[in-house]
Amino acid sequence: MIERLAIVGVGLIGGSLALALRRAGIVREVVGCGRGVANLELARARGIIDSYTTDPAAAVAGADMVVIGATLAASAAVFAAIAPALEAGAVITDVGSTKASVVAAGRAALGAGFSAFVPGHPIAGTEHSGAGAAFAELYDHHKVILTPLPETDRQALARVRAMWDATGATVVEMSVEMHDAVLAATSHLPHLLAYALVDLLAGRADADDVFAYAAGGFRDFTRIASSSPRMWTEIVLANKAALLDVSRAYAERLTALIAALERDDGATLEAVFTRAKSARDACSVPEANVRR
Amino acid sequence: MIERLAIVGVGLIGGSLALALRRAGIVREVVGCGRGVANLELARARGIIDSYTTDPAAAVAGADMVVIGATLAASAAVFAAIAPALEAGAVITDVGSTKASVVAAGRAALGAGFSAFVPGHPIAGTEHSGAGAAFAELYDHHKVILTPLPETDRQALARVRAMWDATGATVVEMSVEMHDAVLAATSHLPHLLAYALVDLLAGRADADDVFAYAAGGFRDFTRIASSSPRMWTEIVLANKAALLDVSRAYAERLTALIAALERDDGATLEAVFTRAKSARDACSVPEANVRR
Repeated sequence: MIERLAIVGVGLIGGSLALALRRAGIVREVVGCGRGVANLELARARGIIDSYTTDPAAAVAGADMVVIGATLAASAAVFAAIAPALEAGAVITDVGSTKASVVAAGRAALGAGFSAFVPGHPIAGTEHSGAGAAFAELYDHHKVILTPLPETDRQALARVRAMWDATGATVVEMSVEMHDAVLAATSHLPHLLAYALVDLLAGRADADDVFAYAAGGFRDFTRIASSSPRMWTEIVLANKAALLDVSRAYAERLTALIAALERDDGATLEAVFTRAKSARDACSVPEANVRR
Repeated sequence: MIERLAIVGVGLIGGSLALALRRAGIVREVVGCGRGVANLELARARGIIDSYTTDPAAAVAGADMVVIGATLAASAAVFAAIAPALEAGAVITDVGSTKASVVAAGRAALGAGFSAFVPGHPIAGTEHSGAGAAFAELYDHHKVILTPLPETDRQALARVRAMWDATGATVVEMSVEMHDAVLAATSHLPHLLAYALVDLLAGRADADDVFAYAAGGFRDFTRIASSSPRMWTEIVLANKAALLDVSRAYAERLTALIAALERDDGATLEAVFTRAKSARDACSVPEANVRR
């Protein structure tokens, strides 16, 4: 049982976590914290949180579990603000889309208390954001990645695991480096590609027609280009090294495909398409949960 | 009323057209034609066609409406095979994903009869193929693009329009060139991008993990990479000129985005992401219809 849960940043991710834990009946009290009072009011009205404050230090006072749901850019400031106010024995975790940058911020701010920080990342989301978009089923049948470090307290890790288990998610552990490489390939690069495509087409003289006659495949392909520009700028910058690696490899691959098209090399094109279809058909990525 | 409809190539597109016309009650008899007897048997068993033949000339004998649902690569051969057997007054249309290549094939084979050919392309589909994937609702609330030429007979155009209207689709007309440019941008390029991404990731040493931890956004983004490799090889080759134009522009744009990331230029990244989100949110592309 979590006696007092502090959520710093009550958006889609943090808000849905609170709703899932309430559904599971394993949290007694939830305190929300953020900079936007309107969003916090909405979270309270929706029953996501019991009370709120705009002061991170006040939010974590008395909390046995602290979830940092703030943006990546705000993480360092949040760690610094809560560090002096954390209770002895409190466990801290986060939901950031990149892990190396958050780990560095946590290590710098928490000092000896860093062992109580369990870096985490739920692999779930929609293109919507804010407390209004939160729903209890977001994590059902989805994965949550935890990236504990050698110095991470095993007890703290077990408590964060138990919390996510209660949301309906499956918890897996991997290294910080592997997390950042996998997410660069499967999430950050696709976002970059989709944003680049929509921006390119939007700038055409025939943009209206282009979008008017687009088919369902285009809609699916570009859905992620509706995600928050600010949040995604922070994510790609925070995971710069891993994302540059995979982006450069992708650009080379694309250039090779364009060259194959240029020389009418159907054999190469069909070989690439065939390998891709086999891999895509073999992978069982879950559908995104949507609000019912 | 269509007295006798000949469908050469009874796949997802041609098969769904027959089912939609039957639903509307405006077709008396449907003859199927193709190279695969198993697929034709399935089409007959599912009530898509009344009878079938593997000979295109036999299929179009007595038909007042001929729909070429064959692959792009087979189009020229189909036109040549049916040309001598077409009834006087018969109308011919097709469903090919590119139009310049099909128009060239039709013009070459049909001679004076070319005026009875109305090039068409329904903007609907799923990643599945074959008669087994066909369903009557595929075209509901979707667009069908017709690209009539100066020499196209107005009566023939009116009959093809009426046929598609009866399927629940909305018919629009545009030039061959505009069709091919729009489809290159919104369909052919996205397929190339998705195939390239999945193939790149499938070749990694950590491919299993990459796919295992991919989120819902990746699933949507790469769904089109499950499409038929053979069909898509034909499509990209058939629309080479338009696709090369937009692909090169895209590769440049991507290179610029990667350069912005490299120099930590958050302002440029956020500006691109913001423009893309605005354009994506403003466009109302219909969801793909799926079989109920």
